Amino acid sequence: MIGVDWGTSSLRAYRLAPDGTVRERREAERGIMTVPPGGFPAALREAVGDWIAAGEDRVLLCGMVGSRQGWVEAPYLACPAGAAEIAGATIRVPFEGARVRLVPGLTTCDPAGVPEVMRGEETKIIGLLGAIGEAPEATLCLPGTHCKWVRIREGRVAGFATYMTGEVFAALSAHTILARTMDTEAPPHAGAFDRGMARARQKGGLLHHLFGVRTQALMGELPPEQGESYLSGLLIGHEVAAALEAGVAPPIHLAGTESLVALYARALGAFGIPHRIHDPDAAALGLALIGGCLGDTDW
Amino acid sequence: MIGVDWGTSSLRAYRLAPDGTVRERREAERGIMTVPPGGFPAALREAVGDWIAAGEDRVLLCGMVGSRQGWVEAPYLACPAGAAEIAGATIRVPFEGARVRLVPGLTTCDPAGVPEVMRGEETKIIGLLGAIGEAPEATLCLPGTHCKWVRIREGRVAGFATYMTGEVFAALSAHTILARTMDTEAPPHAGAFDRGMARARQKGGLLHHLFGVRTQALMGELPPEQGESYLSGLLIGHEVAAALEAGVAPPIHLAGTESLVALYARALGAFGIPHRIHDPDAAALGLALIGGCLGDTDW
Repeated sequence: MIGVDWGTSSLRAYRLAPDGTVRERREAERGIMTVPPGGFPAALREAVGDWIAAGEDRVLLCGMVGSRQGWVEAPYLACPAGAAEIAGATIRVPFEGARVRLVPGLTTCDPAGVPEVMRGEETKIIGLLGAIGEAPEATLCLPGTHCKWVRIREGRVAGFATYMTGEVFAALSAHTILARTMDTEAPPHAGAFDRGMARARQKGGLLHHLFGVRTQALMGELPPEQGESYLSGLLIGHEVAAALEAGVAPPIHLAGTESLVALYARALGAFGIPHRIHDPDAAALGLALIGGCLGDTDW
Repeated sequence: MIGVDWGTSSLRAYRLAPDGTVRERREAERGIMTVPPGGFPAALREAVGDWIAAGEDRVLLCGMVGSRQGWVEAPYLACPAGAAEIAGATIRVPFEGARVRLVPGLTTCDPAGVPEVMRGEETKIIGLLGAIGEAPEATLCLPGTHCKWVRIREGRVAGFATYMTGEVFAALSAHTILARTMDTEAPPHAGAFDRGMARARQKGGLLHHLFGVRTQALMGELPPEQGESYLSGLLIGHEVAAALEAGVAPPIHLAGTESLVALYARALGAFGIPHRIHDPDAAALGLALIGGCLGDTDW
């Protein structure tokens, strides 16, 4: 089968063996934002038309391609959900020459009844389950623009919570007075990250701690080349503290961009929480596993 | 004497009687950002030259005019500080035809040793002390872009903490995915504000609660015309919760823009904290009181 991880800004396509082995892979800057209305069949053919012509007649798509802004909206599936439930909730889209299905996103509610959503991460999570192992409970943390903390129970996604940390970092460091306190060209500074993280564990709350970035810079206590790392430590520290307070089962399994995962690992270490780092490139395996749950007549 | 509240974007000038009565007032869009380097004497003469020519030879300036970006930097004065200490720390700037002095900002440290600063608010606070009354301890909250929570002890500023709430609200509502969830033309919605505020008191932390603005909008649970009020309630709720946790002495005395003060009053009410609202236009009286502490030879 063919698996495609089709996000907002890029498209990654995999030609997959039945056991999940990647026979061929491709990547293109052909995210859904670049596809005009009605243009999805043509964009898919452009990306993998030769594989289809060579006999692959099953294509499974995950990511934002299944959102309201994508090809067709694949409605969110409620947790708990594992590979079988996700496969059962895929939806078919019309395409000539192959059977094409969209993976749904997942939804859950936090204890207060506020909804949560993910789209794309569910497939990576399924791909990571094998590496996480057989523990009846586990916690997966996927750092990024919108960081996901995922509760795994008996091989299924039991629930999850999203933290807007990455996007808040970007907005604050570019569009507030804090921008003036930062040399954004400077390399990461571990000591400043640790100071920001330690600050997050003190009283006062994030909205107060943020002003401290400004005042410490003003008073010469935080050089511009340390500003970004301090802010990063402050925000990740607040996120980790809140996630731990909400209750997570250690060890924490981390997967994501290497540099970002290293920061979360550092933060978890400071909190004394055991953690393990996994290969983030799990979407192909997740697509294979979800696709593998579909019998020939399901496609 | 003449008092001038000279901030980043505007200039307010007062011709003051010795008892603090405002004889004349003026306002101009002549904030320090509009003044070219070296242009402050000319800008002051333009604003109040006729009053000086008419015999007023003492001019006291407060606000960002005393910052590094202003006329001359008036170094921050450490708390505790009242009108007398502030008057003693004013600095003289050269000006032909009048004695012109700059009010310093204030600085303090929070319990963890992180510095705090204010500039301009110290003068308003001095002007508000009379209205606050004679209690040995009081808390003043000055909502704004950078909201100040001020501890008053025996008529002096004992310490304070700043929350970046207003600026964070602006950055998040304009420069993150939350912008898509909001109709910024809609009038305030009290029910949505209350829902946001209630959310702030639940577990999960601000970075998680922010994503809930997005998900609730996505799920049709938060209409666009309620998005801004919900976010406002969420942020102010987090601020008030953190300030109360840090320890403040009720009642809380509020002074600031009417609409914003009303939101803080609503939040404090929800937390069951008594509060009083004061006339925010206290800079003129503060300037008069600080100026009144200066003897003729001090000028």
